[in-house]
Amino acid sequence: MNSEEHPGQVMGEEEAWRFLEHTRFGRLALSVGNMPDIFPINYLAHDGKLLMRTNPGTKLAELTINDSVAFEIDGLTESEAWSVVLKGTARVLESQTEIDAASELPLTPWLQTLKYTFVEILPQSVRGFRFALGTEPERY
Amino acid sequence: MNSEEHPGQVMGEEEAWRFLEHTRFGRLALSVGNMPDIFPINYLAHDGKLLMRTNPGTKLAELTINDSVAFEIDGLTESEAWSVVLKGTARVLESQTEIDAASELPLTPWLQTLKYTFVEILPQSVRGFRFALGTEPERY
Repeated sequence: MNSEEHPGQVMGEEEAWRFLEHTRFGRLALSVGNMPDIFPINYLAHDGKLLMRTNPGTKLAELTINDSVAFEIDGLTESEAWSVVLKGTARVLESQTEIDAASELPLTPWLQTLKYTFVEILPQSVRGFRFALGTEPERY
Repeated sequence: MNSEEHPGQVMGEEEAWRFLEHTRFGRLALSVGNMPDIFPINYLAHDGKLLMRTNPGTKLAELTINDSVAFEIDGLTESEAWSVVLKGTARVLESQTEIDAASELPLTPWLQTLKYTFVEILPQSVRGFRFALGTEPERY
């Protein structure tokens, strides 16, 4: 992403984190064998990281092969659209201490399931953009 | 994605396409050098394909290196959340005939820009899920 690609207003990192902290749902993009995939998921921003839960299954298998992820949230107000993209690495919480601590956090997935695994995203970069919702200039 | 990972109700492909046709905004996931990236973008489902516009820049450069993409849309109703993921290949429209035809379609990006390029996504698979928004079962 660069400014040419996003002529909208670039957010500061602090503001981008505020959006991450006040949102509960986003999309996690993975790559396996250079094939992109994307998963809608509930999450919680906590302690400078993102926490999410998933079922033991495909998604986790992919994270084991390649832990690089991109995570996106977006929204609309009356006058603008906004989007924040976080890139980082994913790690499955393995120790019972970590799992117990994560279980105490207010993370409420849509998926109604008994078995789950916690995944933590450690950020490497966070970028946010605002797009004014207006009229497009004429193209000649 | 499999049913274990998505205990929600799986949509039929026809229904998933109805959601794609009635939505105008989604997220495009790419992979470059096995590193995932994700871009919020306006689009139009037309003639069994997705059409979007982008600035000549990073995103297009990435599509030239690896044309595999995943595209996601989602939404909420009072009682459920839904998501549709389309996987396919991306192609930049090069011929003036194609560009002229695409210019006639009601595709209205947020990005207010004069220079742009049309990208078409040819689907390989489309999957949709509904998630009932309810109470999670107790975990013992």
